[in-house]
Amino acid sequence: MPNSRSNGGKELDMKQSWILFLAAALGLSAADDLKKPLVLASQGSFFVGGESKSYTTPSPNPQAPAITGDITINQMYVQFQTPVGGERHTPVVMVHGCCLSSKTWETTPDGRIGWNEYFVRKGRPTYLADQVSRARSGFDGAKINAVRSGAVPPSQLPNVLTASHQTAWSVFRFGPKFGQAFPDGQFPIEAVDELYKQMIPDLNSLLPSPNPTWTNMAALAVKLHGAVLIGHSESGFFPEQAALIDPSGVKGIVSIEMPCATNLTASQLSTLAKIPTLVMFGDHLGDVQGGIANWMTSFESCNTFVKQVAGAGGDAQMMYLPKMGIKGNSHMLMQDRNNLQLADLILEWIDKRVEAKKTSRK
Amino acid sequence: MPNSRSNGGKELDMKQSWILFLAAALGLSAADDLKKPLVLASQGSFFVGGESKSYTTPSPNPQAPAITGDITINQMYVQFQTPVGGERHTPVVMVHGCCLSSKTWETTPDGRIGWNEYFVRKGRPTYLADQVSRARSGFDGAKINAVRSGAVPPSQLPNVLTASHQTAWSVFRFGPKFGQAFPDGQFPIEAVDELYKQMIPDLNSLLPSPNPTWTNMAALAVKLHGAVLIGHSESGFFPEQAALIDPSGVKGIVSIEMPCATNLTASQLSTLAKIPTLVMFGDHLGDVQGGIANWMTSFESCNTFVKQVAGAGGDAQMMYLPKMGIKGNSHMLMQDRNNLQLADLILEWIDKRVEAKKTSRK
Repeated sequence: MPNSRSNGGKELDMKQSWILFLAAALGLSAADDLKKPLVLASQGSFFVGGESKSYTTPSPNPQAPAITGDITINQMYVQFQTPVGGERHTPVVMVHGCCLSSKTWETTPDGRIGWNEYFVRKGRPTYLADQVSRARSGFDGAKINAVRSGAVPPSQLPNVLTASHQTAWSVFRFGPKFGQAFPDGQFPIEAVDELYKQMIPDLNSLLPSPNPTWTNMAALAVKLHGAVLIGHSESGFFPEQAALIDPSGVKGIVSIEMPCATNLTASQLSTLAKIPTLVMFGDHLGDVQGGIANWMTSFESCNTFVKQVAGAGGDAQMMYLPKMGIKGNSHMLMQDRNNLQLADLILEWIDKRVEAKKTSRK
Repeated sequence: MPNSRSNGGKELDMKQSWILFLAAALGLSAADDLKKPLVLASQGSFFVGGESKSYTTPSPNPQAPAITGDITINQMYVQFQTPVGGERHTPVVMVHGCCLSSKTWETTPDGRIGWNEYFVRKGRPTYLADQVSRARSGFDGAKINAVRSGAVPPSQLPNVLTASHQTAWSVFRFGPKFGQAFPDGQFPIEAVDELYKQMIPDLNSLLPSPNPTWTNMAALAVKLHGAVLIGHSESGFFPEQAALIDPSGVKGIVSIEMPCATNLTASQLSTLAKIPTLVMFGDHLGDVQGGIANWMTSFESCNTFVKQVAGAGGDAQMMYLPKMGIKGNSHMLMQDRNNLQLADLILEWIDKRVEAKKTSRK
């Protein structure tokens, strides 16, 4: 894989096998104790996509000519970890939602293990991508400077989506109204201030169409020789969008809490029907007063979407947690107190619906 | 440590000791082969600092009143890894430079191991911080939206520092002019396009004074019960700035390629003189045609600074690589082909000047 360190997992030598054997003999293999050392075959970071763009900036001296050069835009930053033996599993790619970064999947606001490390401990090569125009992927700052210099009017500035604490409380369904939590809520509300620190400006309004994150996710799946794509909220339907651009690397789709498209063509549904798909929704979808999100409508759209994919011969499943007896989950369910129980549901789904099929085809 | 996973390294039990012993017996302990598995006691991410700010945004409906809420600003995102046995060493904090993120310290543009993982493999608890207003730390988007709504004039927009490929080539000293590399250059110039993808807009012009990154670095050092702070370029003098705010946690300072302050008061120099300080500069400081950086001037200012600290009784050292027979290093020396040789110089300096002193004091 270019621009990343080689996967040592594929070069397991006898010594490493011995270590694994001995670790198992000493009772360290099950890794149910999450405080035990984490053993990685490799880790690193790289970019997917990106293109050069000519860029003109006013000179610091108003009498001097403008300075012209090239910048790179639309690249997607990806950070990964591969456990020893990870080549036995399909890689998993996680993409965060609005006003957030890959921090979403890491240490929870109250300091527990995040899905990123948990998936690695469960043997999965795990990739975290910062959306294009966010965090370490950067954004195209040219338009802001063009307005600053007077070359274009302020109306051409991007809408910098800045979600407030109050918006987060309602959209993320922490309680019926700001400052009041659901009694059975799973979000670690005592640490909500740490979640607020994760919330950063969203500049997706700067992006061209199709969203380069979709294209880059499809390219990443190809580069990995197959991957399960996980999206959440703003990015919840990105795995499907990536597959509609190029399905060849997309071996499974996990879509968590978002509006679903229900107007796909028969050809598009046929493409998606070839990929096992899991949709997951938490609790209290209709229990928040006011707010800008309508989760019941999103939920219904996804129920329709799941039926449409199934109708096209696909393996699509709605996992509506309250119906399974799992109560109180917020929109930020990967950070909820029962986050590892939910991760286990996804891991089991990958084992049965993605990897078992791959094996049975051999 | 709040908001991060507990340090399993302090809870080494017999089983883990056995694993380490067996790994050593099988020849895996020296870790000179960087492809061997990486064993971590813990990893995670958290924020330092951050404060609430009331924020007003125009309603999507022009007839409706503006929406008011709170956002969090000035927080600093930190990602860390602790090796097994890491409690034997002083933690190391790395902070990136202008128009870059913590990606600086990770996998190099040509896919080799970065300083972050190398320091961990050398036993150091290693912390990467995204500067406040950059990458996963986010930025205060309120002013951009205020201009967009017409509430304030475009002149109040931040200067979005967007470094072009051409600027990078000269400032980072890849060669005498754009597209032409130094024959003895250490930067992996064949992979320069991957470096360009790391370059993201710099919004430090939005920051209050003192820069919250300085305050947060000082607070992080306290939180870690002592740390070596490493800065580079824009952040090269940040360790000193952090120590001038609160020196209590700063056990060592590594400043790489930046202008140094030479007008510090006797009181300030006295504070810094209590902290071992290493300054490092690469090659070809005066060999680039044009460009906005004057590296010879920066180098001279740091020579003066080192003398001033030494004059105040401090242990300050200038490591000018060409004088040591190490030729061809660029400004991005942590990504250069000989990056691990340079890391070893820093590790050895920490052992002798920071940790040996700590031990001898006991």
